[in-house]
Amino acid sequence: MDKLLRINMSTPGGPSFQTDALGTYAGMGGRAMTSAVIAAEVPPTCHPLGEANKLVIAPGLLSGSAAAMSGRLSVGCKSPLTGGIKEANAGGQAAQVMGRLGYAAIILEGKPADDSLYKVIINKDGVTIESAADIKGLGNYATVEKLAAQYGEKLAYITIGQAGEMKMSAASIAVTDMEARPTRHAGRGGVGAVMGAKGIKAIVLDDAGCAMRKPADPEKFKAANKAFAEGLRKHAVTGEGMPAFGTNVLTNVINEAGGYPTHNFKMGQFDGASKISGEAQAALENERGGEGSATQGCHRGCIIRCSGTFYDKNDNYVTKQPEYETVWAHGGNCGIDDLDIIAQLDRMDDDFGLDTIEMGATIGVAMEAGLAEFGDGQAAINMIKEVGKGTPLGRILGNGAAAVTGQVFGVERVPVVKRQAMPAYDPRAVQGIGVTYATSTMGADHTAGYAVGPNILGDGGSVPALKPEGQVELARNLQIATAAIDSTGMCLFVAFPILDQPETFNALVVLIGAFIGQPMTAESVTELGKAILTNEREFNKAAGFTIKHDRLPDFFKKETLPPHNITFNVTEEELDTLYNWQWYRGLKGEKKGHNTHGATPAAPVANHSLA
Amino acid sequence: MDKLLRINMSTPGGPSFQTDALGTYAGMGGRAMTSAVIAAEVPPTCHPLGEANKLVIAPGLLSGSAAAMSGRLSVGCKSPLTGGIKEANAGGQAAQVMGRLGYAAIILEGKPADDSLYKVIINKDGVTIESAADIKGLGNYATVEKLAAQYGEKLAYITIGQAGEMKMSAASIAVTDMEARPTRHAGRGGVGAVMGAKGIKAIVLDDAGCAMRKPADPEKFKAANKAFAEGLRKHAVTGEGMPAFGTNVLTNVINEAGGYPTHNFKMGQFDGASKISGEAQAALENERGGEGSATQGCHRGCIIRCSGTFYDKNDNYVTKQPEYETVWAHGGNCGIDDLDIIAQLDRMDDDFGLDTIEMGATIGVAMEAGLAEFGDGQAAINMIKEVGKGTPLGRILGNGAAAVTGQVFGVERVPVVKRQAMPAYDPRAVQGIGVTYATSTMGADHTAGYAVGPNILGDGGSVPALKPEGQVELARNLQIATAAIDSTGMCLFVAFPILDQPETFNALVVLIGAFIGQPMTAESVTELGKAILTNEREFNKAAGFTIKHDRLPDFFKKETLPPHNITFNVTEEELDTLYNWQWYRGLKGEKKGHNTHGATPAAPVANHSLA
Repeated sequence: MDKLLRINMSTPGGPSFQTDALGTYAGMGGRAMTSAVIAAEVPPTCHPLGEANKLVIAPGLLSGSAAAMSGRLSVGCKSPLTGGIKEANAGGQAAQVMGRLGYAAIILEGKPADDSLYKVIINKDGVTIESAADIKGLGNYATVEKLAAQYGEKLAYITIGQAGEMKMSAASIAVTDMEARPTRHAGRGGVGAVMGAKGIKAIVLDDAGCAMRKPADPEKFKAANKAFAEGLRKHAVTGEGMPAFGTNVLTNVINEAGGYPTHNFKMGQFDGASKISGEAQAALENERGGEGSATQGCHRGCIIRCSGTFYDKNDNYVTKQPEYETVWAHGGNCGIDDLDIIAQLDRMDDDFGLDTIEMGATIGVAMEAGLAEFGDGQAAINMIKEVGKGTPLGRILGNGAAAVTGQVFGVERVPVVKRQAMPAYDPRAVQGIGVTYATSTMGADHTAGYAVGPNILGDGGSVPALKPEGQVELARNLQIATAAIDSTGMCLFVAFPILDQPETFNALVVLIGAFIGQPMTAESVTELGKAILTNEREFNKAAGFTIKHDRLPDFFKKETLPPHNITFNVTEEELDTLYNWQWYRGLKGEKKGHNTHGATPAAPVANHSLA
Repeated sequence: MDKLLRINMSTPGGPSFQTDALGTYAGMGGRAMTSAVIAAEVPPTCHPLGEANKLVIAPGLLSGSAAAMSGRLSVGCKSPLTGGIKEANAGGQAAQVMGRLGYAAIILEGKPADDSLYKVIINKDGVTIESAADIKGLGNYATVEKLAAQYGEKLAYITIGQAGEMKMSAASIAVTDMEARPTRHAGRGGVGAVMGAKGIKAIVLDDAGCAMRKPADPEKFKAANKAFAEGLRKHAVTGEGMPAFGTNVLTNVINEAGGYPTHNFKMGQFDGASKISGEAQAALENERGGEGSATQGCHRGCIIRCSGTFYDKNDNYVTKQPEYETVWAHGGNCGIDDLDIIAQLDRMDDDFGLDTIEMGATIGVAMEAGLAEFGDGQAAINMIKEVGKGTPLGRILGNGAAAVTGQVFGVERVPVVKRQAMPAYDPRAVQGIGVTYATSTMGADHTAGYAVGPNILGDGGSVPALKPEGQVELARNLQIATAAIDSTGMCLFVAFPILDQPETFNALVVLIGAFIGQPMTAESVTELGKAILTNEREFNKAAGFTIKHDRLPDFFKKETLPPHNITFNVTEEELDTLYNWQWYRGLKGEKKGHNTHGATPAAPVANHSLA
């Protein structure tokens, strides 16, 4: 990973490329890399679909190595959905393969003069760029099938479906999984639209003949990796719950906690939750059998294996085991309690290349607008079909919940922050995640600082979910830690054991240090997290964001959520202190800073403030 | 005009109202009133369609008096299109009638619990609020027809069409003209959607039995009014050009200057301009005859009379004489050179209740997206029909050029500022209007500071149109003067004579002073303008706007505009000095301030800066 691949789509006569040294980007991976490139090279006020925006695809710092869980890929750009900086994270095979190919980032620049589409083929011998006219207009499944027939079954593919070609703000970028299916998506913020605007339909990654990346200190690395893996296996979430039931193990938990947004965030509990829970899903998958019903990883090197395969009644493959957020978005949020319908919607989203969270939230808003009844699964399927076809209704829905659908249908209750749809946790019943939604540089994003752990699950400490006290500090700590983790290539689920088990946290710190040949400390990891967030926030500020954008929609402050019948009540003054780094107290076992837990700070500090 | 009418749509059991004293709003009219109420009473981050937004309808300070040209109405709210403060200005009868009824403002507050629609009837005896179920879903023409049959032909009506009921961001509010037709619109920023969200379909204004408002100093007032009217009659624009050809006299002028945006702002000249010019339009109207072909005013007290009536080939009424911006928006911008088609589009916009500028710009973007060929008039008619029906495509288009249509169809070239579509002057060939577009609190709005005068027409001074020098100062001066004029109830066209003829300017200042019984000076008028703009800008800042929103879209800085082949080249640093009031040099004959004409200032001043 000692080079950058820059592909310029504006060159007269067709796309060109060059391979650059890392320069100032040396030592960066994942989100650190994508956000650094965007912040340094993209004019913050540019049009997201214009020539000046860039799409940066970066494996993590440890991707391509033997480090467990290190196969996550970061995709960055200025987001067409939020208008701010974006890092969307995906599993799948691409990160490990890019790592072995030696590319720390692929940067797509410029814009073709016409609407030509291209594919980029990268292998040990270099790069070729070819016309993608033969796969234009195809969904991700058909695209990958054609590419696999041409280039090989074992390769990694990064593709967009129809939504990306149509430059929809909910368009994702698909990454093939271990079964060479396009089921892993950099979902959020419309990254697929930017790839579409660049005129790139597919990136073919072939690491044949490339070696695994070597750590600087192999012995230390090996020992730390072993300790790290042990920590994952012994933790209840990553060692038991997730392998058994997948991420959808959360449905019953969040529903019981009253934080499961139902009927477009009208209620915190869903009557049909038990019918679409991880337990019900696992039972159904086991009943239907098939080789894929065992738990699977999404990339080589995964040892949590929270995924699986969803087959229909006739044992035909439908999609990968739908994730919790997908099941929620297309399920409870829309009042749909049928796993077969949800799986079909998931498959269609993956095929057209759409963010399942954005689409589920969008259908919820459409149902609120009266386009269909809550609970009408066939109507939801028809809506997603419209998106794939690009009809006017489909164009509306495919551009997301707030950015378009809410406005088009005159709906006030649109669950978004910075125009990005909220995921599967109601901020009134899980106040910590509400702080993350409000303050994240990404827009509403549970993965930016998963306060659900300490709020609900009792992981990574305990901060009562229904009260405002301590939520800002919690969200600050988690956002810092997350930004750092997102840079390593590590799956975010390692957060459960590392926040609970100091020895696993230490193992990860040592693992990174042993790989790069530079001793790491807990403090240097958190400094990295702060630096990334600062970089992102400065970009957003330069793009026109202020603290006024760090707010939840009015209705979360006015409407009470059953069954707890509470509103979101972290004050704006508290929200505005999130970026006060000097109040950072550190992760577990790394107690730094000078503020008292839960104390309400007096005023935001100008340094990182958008005031 | 010594009272406010507040109508609360949230009251349990149905709408309620109360009449309040003016309190801190005493002495305010028009835009000063609407912006003061919005700034003081509406939470800047609220949802524009939510309960917390308010719709303020205010006649000008002189409305209802004998002052010439004083019948303009201001409508204010937080805009669903821009997300910022909005004042949209309309002619028609309502301002004069409201003035005589004694209401300095009608303030619509709250939101009905269901989708009930109401009408408000106001006469000398007071206020009644009734169900509008009988006119639900009707266009403005049918609405007014039914209301006139019930309440009287001679009344003034303020109504919304289907677009407002559907809460579209391009929805206008219609005001009936002297012929009791709904042809005068508070067009910009989606004010009609806010009226729709409040559940008000119509306001019936009946001033029978009410007297004209009396000036404090009748003799002085009468003399000043006479001098003012003489000034209007002797000026070439208001005394000759506008009465003869209407506002559409500009088509040939702007086209010859190379600043006529054609084919979605791709060129600065339109081949078909002469076929849709004011001259061609007047000839056609005269040829077709009919009583309305003579020039008309839009309200009692108008002496410019820039309007007329458009009849079809069979001498049937179609619409009022389409304005320049309408002819441009539906004409040259879309490559359409047929006045009959343009008149049909104007009629449909008026009937559905749509801003003609926003709709023309939107169709231009849709044509750029490939939905129709430039020049296809029937396609444009079909698109507006879709809006009226509220089909998905219609919902997209009815929500405006940027806010939706550009994003939905993935178009980069969207001519908007703060999400509001640009009017009929290309900012590359008329750089001063580009500064107004960029910096106005309203989004792109030619009426906020009509730099076209000094840039192109040689009115109100002369600043060369193609160079950046002096444009910021020009736009600053004009925006200050305009905000003040918009508060008097005066038609903005009085700006031509008052900026050119010191004696007419003085007559207006004396006229206002004689009416309110407090001597006015040129300086007090401009202080009023500054105060209004400051108020509006502070609201926008609190809503999340920064100087990054005071920018034109990238393509105006990158793409050259034929025939001059230039880009917009006023720098961002210059734009950011617009609100430096201490650099204000004053209107003609009122030379104040300390800056040298055209000098480039060093840095913005923090006071009114959004930096």
